[in-house]
Amino acid sequence: MHTFVDPLYRAYKLFADHVSMINGEVRLTYAETWSRCCRLAGALTQLGVQSGERVAILAWNSHQYLEVYMAVPASGRVVVPLNTRHAEPELRYALEDAGARILITDREPGALATTVERVIRLPDDYETLLAQAPEADLGVGVTEDSLAGLFYTGGTTGVSKGVMLSHRNLLANTTNWLIAAQQGPEDTYLVMAPLFHAAGSLAVLATVWTGGRQVILPAFDPGATLDVIAAEQVTVTLGVPTMIAAMAEEQLVRPRQVGSLRSLSHGGSPIATEVVRRARAAFPGAELVHAYGTTETAPLATLLRHEEQRIESNVARSCGQAVAGVDVRVFGPNGHAMPPGEIGEVVVRGPNVMQGYWNKPEQTAEVLRNGWYYTGDLGYMNDQGYIFLVDRAKDMIISGGENVYSTEVEEALYQHPAVLEAAVFGVPDEQWGEAVHAVVVPRAGQEVDAATLIAFCHKHIAGYKVPKQVDLRRDPLPKSGPGKVLKRELRAPFWAGHRAQIN
Amino acid sequence: MHTFVDPLYRAYKLFADHVSMINGEVRLTYAETWSRCCRLAGALTQLGVQSGERVAILAWNSHQYLEVYMAVPASGRVVVPLNTRHAEPELRYALEDAGARILITDREPGALATTVERVIRLPDDYETLLAQAPEADLGVGVTEDSLAGLFYTGGTTGVSKGVMLSHRNLLANTTNWLIAAQQGPEDTYLVMAPLFHAAGSLAVLATVWTGGRQVILPAFDPGATLDVIAAEQVTVTLGVPTMIAAMAEEQLVRPRQVGSLRSLSHGGSPIATEVVRRARAAFPGAELVHAYGTTETAPLATLLRHEEQRIESNVARSCGQAVAGVDVRVFGPNGHAMPPGEIGEVVVRGPNVMQGYWNKPEQTAEVLRNGWYYTGDLGYMNDQGYIFLVDRAKDMIISGGENVYSTEVEEALYQHPAVLEAAVFGVPDEQWGEAVHAVVVPRAGQEVDAATLIAFCHKHIAGYKVPKQVDLRRDPLPKSGPGKVLKRELRAPFWAGHRAQIN
Repeated sequence: MHTFVDPLYRAYKLFADHVSMINGEVRLTYAETWSRCCRLAGALTQLGVQSGERVAILAWNSHQYLEVYMAVPASGRVVVPLNTRHAEPELRYALEDAGARILITDREPGALATTVERVIRLPDDYETLLAQAPEADLGVGVTEDSLAGLFYTGGTTGVSKGVMLSHRNLLANTTNWLIAAQQGPEDTYLVMAPLFHAAGSLAVLATVWTGGRQVILPAFDPGATLDVIAAEQVTVTLGVPTMIAAMAEEQLVRPRQVGSLRSLSHGGSPIATEVVRRARAAFPGAELVHAYGTTETAPLATLLRHEEQRIESNVARSCGQAVAGVDVRVFGPNGHAMPPGEIGEVVVRGPNVMQGYWNKPEQTAEVLRNGWYYTGDLGYMNDQGYIFLVDRAKDMIISGGENVYSTEVEEALYQHPAVLEAAVFGVPDEQWGEAVHAVVVPRAGQEVDAATLIAFCHKHIAGYKVPKQVDLRRDPLPKSGPGKVLKRELRAPFWAGHRAQIN
Repeated sequence: MHTFVDPLYRAYKLFADHVSMINGEVRLTYAETWSRCCRLAGALTQLGVQSGERVAILAWNSHQYLEVYMAVPASGRVVVPLNTRHAEPELRYALEDAGARILITDREPGALATTVERVIRLPDDYETLLAQAPEADLGVGVTEDSLAGLFYTGGTTGVSKGVMLSHRNLLANTTNWLIAAQQGPEDTYLVMAPLFHAAGSLAVLATVWTGGRQVILPAFDPGATLDVIAAEQVTVTLGVPTMIAAMAEEQLVRPRQVGSLRSLSHGGSPIATEVVRRARAAFPGAELVHAYGTTETAPLATLLRHEEQRIESNVARSCGQAVAGVDVRVFGPNGHAMPPGEIGEVVVRGPNVMQGYWNKPEQTAEVLRNGWYYTGDLGYMNDQGYIFLVDRAKDMIISGGENVYSTEVEEALYQHPAVLEAAVFGVPDEQWGEAVHAVVVPRAGQEVDAATLIAFCHKHIAGYKVPKQVDLRRDPLPKSGPGKVLKRELRAPFWAGHRAQIN
């Protein structure tokens, strides 16, 4: 029943003179945002972009990015946000797969220019276009089933696929987030995760619908983040665990006035308990929230609220319960629900679940079955419906016939005070099939050796889970755009020449 | 995409051992509520009640009422809540119009028993049925477009009509309320308005969906209400203005510990500014919220939050802005939007708008036009989208060619310290067509005469709006079930024998 136009129009009519976005020196009202979105729609019409056609964007976060994210779908086109960490071949693949006609970008497009009809450079070309374009009507011919965006997944798992999210999918996520997070009109939301990722765009429509403000960081930087929280009295934000960790480290060393921050959410990958503990110490006024979801679920599926009060509880390691509006269960191999406590695949159902993968009916059929989306994440549910993720299905290590979930080993390592970053994966082993292997970056100024960490792990987890080897490194671990550790890259050298390589 | 089953099932799976309802000495968990709802569904199956058939209820509020309200639709039947203030002919009309097969009631049904196949008396018959019934599966064959309930409007305006609300309508209202009121899992909601009225049932599904608690008062009484707020640490409630006024009077005279109350909403009829002022004094820790809606809009349309901070502002007399998810506008006679500040008819659009009136295609076509519901309420919108209701279309007095909105005159009277209740309407007048007439009940122990009140009004409103006559009475004004003043009854004696009588 609702589309992207409804939040935008409501904010324009009810909050015309309220601040909608703050991006560095730029402050826009909802009247200005509405006008700019209508003119972007008008410019696309002038360029001959038809309803249903794709418009890609490759850029740092900005208010223009938010306009593209909202106005392209609101005017009936399909937005394709591209991952800024991707290399040219991956970007070319996404542009060609999507059949994008336009690329809006803040960088030299290079050979990508040949894949689209037109490149619009940010900010100059874009602003020139908007300045001369007429305001087009938004919403013409747009229904809740219209495709709103193609979101290319990838980075840590396999080949990139265009996740088709409809207006209904993204509006459902909007209400789900507003209800679950109790975000309201007085809130100022900080966009700090990249907007091409669900962690960045999760609350965009939600904030507009309630008439709140959005503060936009071009790219994450812990110092800049804390500065803008203090300057703009940010109340709510969400990032990936590496961001939360970096913010906490920075705040503990160089504290800012961040008392306005009432809600700090994280998602996208597992968080170490020690990071939660440090975030609690750094942001004592903020509720810590663990959000779990996938691009395919637009994205929110579960939420663990008040994580900071639960560090010692039996749900501390959970990603919470299904939010209202989303049905989350754990299925066994036969497609039936597993009993409480038993590991299976996490499945999701609701109006937020994607329409499918763009031009990939087989891959779609693999993951959308009988109305359920199969996440590929392994986990279990306790008897109160709390979901515990044990690992990505593909990240499970099978060593001597025993299943080892890498997050559990990483958790053990993170409990050691000298460990700043840790990644655990399987490497080929003649005796065991796979051996548990760890890569660790120690905290600056701290010395620790592999034997100490191995002995430390033996105190916390079963012997077969303890890393056989611990690799100590000085450089930060490689990460994908949204900040997930790229285990694939760490793992690759070990598996070169082996058939069993796991992506 | 969602039906009544989703909130119920979620609460059962995630909050099985949490308290769902408190009704006097009875405290039920969500596991118990789920089981009782499944057994009610099983009992209806045993009684041969088919999917789509109607089950009526005529009773004071109770946990059983909530079960009927939820389980009848969740099992595919249609619930018909009847107005306990209605006389037998009105009840008979509703039962026959709905074609109800079953009547669940806490009173001697009398001749009503002949209109249905079976009467189930509360609580004994009902509990006996539940004790022996098997648990039936909920949700079988139920879709979002299934009819969930028939809600008979009436009391203050014309002939009673069965408002058809679907699962989609009531679920849309659920998310609209949760987002607008920011009600969450920690809240305890007090059901104090009668459940047959939208003001009573407004937050039922919302509270279940978030896993909150509901405290149920059989019927409103100001002392009992304050006692239960204190005893159960109620955080949120909603009533009609006469309830708010009575609660405030009681709290100011005999204060209870009501600091838990964070949100006190009112709706159903206009509120006098003086009542808001007294409620603010009585409940200094509570946010006062003005909710506006109609049964036909399931019901929420607009909300004015933090009314207690706005008594002196230019939106004090507004019922607020459209909530997210609902489109509210003011149309002129030609069906176009009126400019800001100009009076027209308030219209509403959204997934919350009813399917129509039961078996009344003509009356449906009159009010549902081009996707909009025409409320029959007159009002205007300011340039920030705040809606100001001036009156029911039918309550407008036309005196000497001038339009007089009775609420404005009532507001003037309420500003006098001796006025407890006031109702203003038109009476036949040879010279003016209609004359403005007031009925006033003075506050206990206060003396005031008509001449004083007329002189007082002259200081506040234009001469043509000042009542020609003021009738002083000792008895409270007659009210409909939900607490609206029955102007029809007050007006009738004056119009006996006149053709122009206004219902």
